[in-house]
Amino acid sequence: MEHQVPQFLGLLVLILGTAKVLGTAAKWIGQPAVLGELVAGVLLGSSAFGWVDPNQETLHLLAEIGVIFLLFEIGLETDLKKLLQVGGTATVVAIVGVVLPFALGYAACRFRGLEPLVATVVGATLTATSVGITARVLADLGRLQERESQIILGAAVLDDVVGLIILAVVSKLSAGGTVSALDVAWIAAVAFGFLIVTLLVGSWLVPLVVRWLVRPGDSALATALAVMLAFALAWLAHTCGSAMILGAFVAGLLLRKTSLLHEIERGIAPLGHFFVPIFFVTIGAAVDLRTFNPMVAENQRSLWAGGLLIVAAVVGKFLAGYAPFWIREKKSVIGVGMIPRGEVGLIFAQMGLASKVFEPWLFSAVTLMVMVTTFITPPLLRMLFPSSPGTLPTKPEGEEELVNEP
Amino acid sequence: MEHQVPQFLGLLVLILGTAKVLGTAAKWIGQPAVLGELVAGVLLGSSAFGWVDPNQETLHLLAEIGVIFLLFEIGLETDLKKLLQVGGTATVVAIVGVVLPFALGYAACRFRGLEPLVATVVGATLTATSVGITARVLADLGRLQERESQIILGAAVLDDVVGLIILAVVSKLSAGGTVSALDVAWIAAVAFGFLIVTLLVGSWLVPLVVRWLVRPGDSALATALAVMLAFALAWLAHTCGSAMILGAFVAGLLLRKTSLLHEIERGIAPLGHFFVPIFFVTIGAAVDLRTFNPMVAENQRSLWAGGLLIVAAVVGKFLAGYAPFWIREKKSVIGVGMIPRGEVGLIFAQMGLASKVFEPWLFSAVTLMVMVTTFITPPLLRMLFPSSPGTLPTKPEGEEELVNEP
Repeated sequence: MEHQVPQFLGLLVLILGTAKVLGTAAKWIGQPAVLGELVAGVLLGSSAFGWVDPNQETLHLLAEIGVIFLLFEIGLETDLKKLLQVGGTATVVAIVGVVLPFALGYAACRFRGLEPLVATVVGATLTATSVGITARVLADLGRLQERESQIILGAAVLDDVVGLIILAVVSKLSAGGTVSALDVAWIAAVAFGFLIVTLLVGSWLVPLVVRWLVRPGDSALATALAVMLAFALAWLAHTCGSAMILGAFVAGLLLRKTSLLHEIERGIAPLGHFFVPIFFVTIGAAVDLRTFNPMVAENQRSLWAGGLLIVAAVVGKFLAGYAPFWIREKKSVIGVGMIPRGEVGLIFAQMGLASKVFEPWLFSAVTLMVMVTTFITPPLLRMLFPSSPGTLPTKPEGEEELVNEP
Repeated sequence: MEHQVPQFLGLLVLILGTAKVLGTAAKWIGQPAVLGELVAGVLLGSSAFGWVDPNQETLHLLAEIGVIFLLFEIGLETDLKKLLQVGGTATVVAIVGVVLPFALGYAACRFRGLEPLVATVVGATLTATSVGITARVLADLGRLQERESQIILGAAVLDDVVGLIILAVVSKLSAGGTVSALDVAWIAAVAFGFLIVTLLVGSWLVPLVVRWLVRPGDSALATALAVMLAFALAWLAHTCGSAMILGAFVAGLLLRKTSLLHEIERGIAPLGHFFVPIFFVTIGAAVDLRTFNPMVAENQRSLWAGGLLIVAAVVGKFLAGYAPFWIREKKSVIGVGMIPRGEVGLIFAQMGLASKVFEPWLFSAVTLMVMVTTFITPPLLRMLFPSSPGTLPTKPEGEEELVNEP
C-alpha cells in the first residue's frame, strides 16, 4: 500500500494536467471547458491509454467529492428566491421530463417485443437528468443567473428526487416484490421532506450558527464550516433516500444567505478546481469507444437499441422544455439543458443487470445513451446559449469557470 | 461501494470537525493547534471511539496528500538562501542527530542482550526526524522564519534522506543479504542527487514555465500548476529513493521564487486546511492507549523497552542540537525540534517485524517511542519558543496556522 501513494499522485497529476490542457483547448474552439475534461477522461480511460479506472475505489470517492463541491458551488451561486419564483415552471418541466421519456422508452421496448418489467426498467433509466453536466456548462458559459438556468436547475433537482423514488419502486419490482401506493407515498414524503425541512430549518439555523461561530474575515473557519455542512447534508440526503448532490446543493443555497458568502466562495474555489475535474475525467473514462464499433457483430444489437434510447431520451426531455408553453424564456435551452443522463440511469441499468431483468446488450444500450446524452449537451447548449457577453471577457482566464459574481 | 461514499463523507465531517474544535481548544490553553488535532485522532481512533482506521486505504491516501500539502506550504514559506546559509550547521545537527540516537539505541539493545542485527534495526528506527510535526508547530507558533527553525528544517530534510539510505541498507541486511560500500554510495548519490538536480534545474525552469504559461491574477491556473508540481516532484522523489515529502518541499522552495507566490499561497491554503488535519488525525488514531496500561503483564516488557528507546530518542536528538556548539541560536529549541519520529521509524519497525528480526514486544516498543516523541514535541517546543509576539495577535484566527507572511 505504501507504494500505491506515489503512483496515485502521478495519476492525479495526469488527470489534472490533461483536464486543464484539454479544458483550455475546448475554450479556444469556443466550447465549454467541461467538454475538454470529458474528452481528457476518454483519452485516459479504457478507450485509449487505460490509465484511469473510474471504478477504482479511491478515485471514485474523489470524483464523488468533486460533484459534491460542484453542486455546492452551484448552490452558492443560486438565489433561492429566484429559484422558487420559477418553481411552478420547473415542476411542469420536471413532470413532463420524467413522464415523456419514460413513456417513449417503455413504448419502444414493448414495440420491440420486450417484457413489461424490462420496458419499465428501461423507461426508468431515461427519467433523471444528470444536473452536474448542465450546471457546469451553464457556469462555464457565465449563464447561471439567467431564468432559463434557474428553471433547468429547479427541474433537474426535482426530477432527481423523482428518479430516486422511481428507483426505490423499480428495485423492489425487479427483485420480484410488490409496491403499494402507501410505500411510494412514504418514500416520496421522506425524499421531498428532506429538501423542505433542511431548507426551512437551515434558513433559520445556519445564519445564526455562522454569526455565532465565525468572526468576519476568518476564511479558514468559514471554509471548514462550509465543507462540513456540504458533506453533512450530502450524507443526510442520502440517508433520507434523496441524492447526495441535492444535500450539497441545499448547503450552498443556505450559505449564500450568510455574511460569509465571499469568504466561502474564495475558500471553496481551489477545492472545486482540485476535485471537480476528477469527476468529469472519470465520467469520460467510463466511455468505452470500442462498443461504438459497428463492425463488431455483437455491438450491433446494442447500437440499434442505444440509438432508439437516445432518440427517446433527447426527444422526451427536449419536448419537456416546451411543456410550459406560456413562458417567454428560450424553451429550446431548457429542453437541451435537461438532456444529459448520468449516475441515476446507470444505477438503474446496473440493477437491471444484477437482477437478470436486463441482458448485457440492453445494459450496453443504456450506457451508450448515457454517454451520448452527456457528450452532446455541452456543444448543443453552447450553440443555443452563447457565452454571456457581459461577464466573460472582463474576467481573467480560469476565474469564470465556476465563480460568476453578479 | 456506492454506499460507502456517504459514510466516508460523514467520517470526513467527523475528522474535520473534531480537529477544528480540539485545535481551537489547544490554542485557548496556549498550545499549538496541531496538538489538538493529534488528540482528536486519539479520540476518534481505536483507543476510544474506533471510528477512524488510519490503515484504511482511502483515508491513508488523503492523509498522505495532507502531509504533501503541509511540506509544500512549508517550502513556500522557506527562503532557499536562508536555508543554505545555515546549511553547515544543519549538516552537523543532522549527522550527530543520526549517529547519536543510533549509537544509544544500539548500545541499549546490546546491553540488554539482543543480537547485533536486532540492535542495528532498533538503532535505525531512532535516526530520522519526522519533519511534519515540528514544521507544523513552528508554523502554528509563527516562528517559521527564525534561524532556529531554518536549522531544524534543513537538518530534518537531510536526516530524512539519510534515514532512507539507512532503510535501504538495513532492509537488505535484515533480509539476510550483504551490502557493499559501492551500493551505499550509489543509493546516497541518487537520493541526494534528486535534491540537488531538482533544485538546480527547477530554479531555472520553473520561473520560466510559470511566466510563459500563467497570466498574473489567474489564481486557478497558478494553483493547479502548483499542485501538479508538488505531486509530480513527490512522485519523482519517491522514484529516486528519496522521500515524497522532500519532493513537495522542493516544489514549494522553487515556486516561492516566482511572481505567483501570493496566488499560490491563497489557492493552496484551503487545500491545506482540508487535507492537513486528516494527516494529523490519522497519526493520533494510530495510537492505541491500551498498550500503555502497565497492569497488563504483556505490556510491561514493551513499556520498559519503549521507555529506554524514548530516552535514547530524546537524549540523542536533544544533544544533536548542541553539536554546533559555536552558534548563538537557541540550541535547546533545535534539539527539541528534532525529537519527533514518524513514518520512517515505523517503516523500519514493520520491516523488522515482517522479516522476524523483531518480536512483537519490540515492535510495540518502537511504536510507543514514535507516539511519545510525537506528542511531547508540541508542548515542549511551545515552552521553549513561545508564539512570536509580533505576528500572532494581528492576524485573524485560522490565518496564522500555516501562512505567515513576512
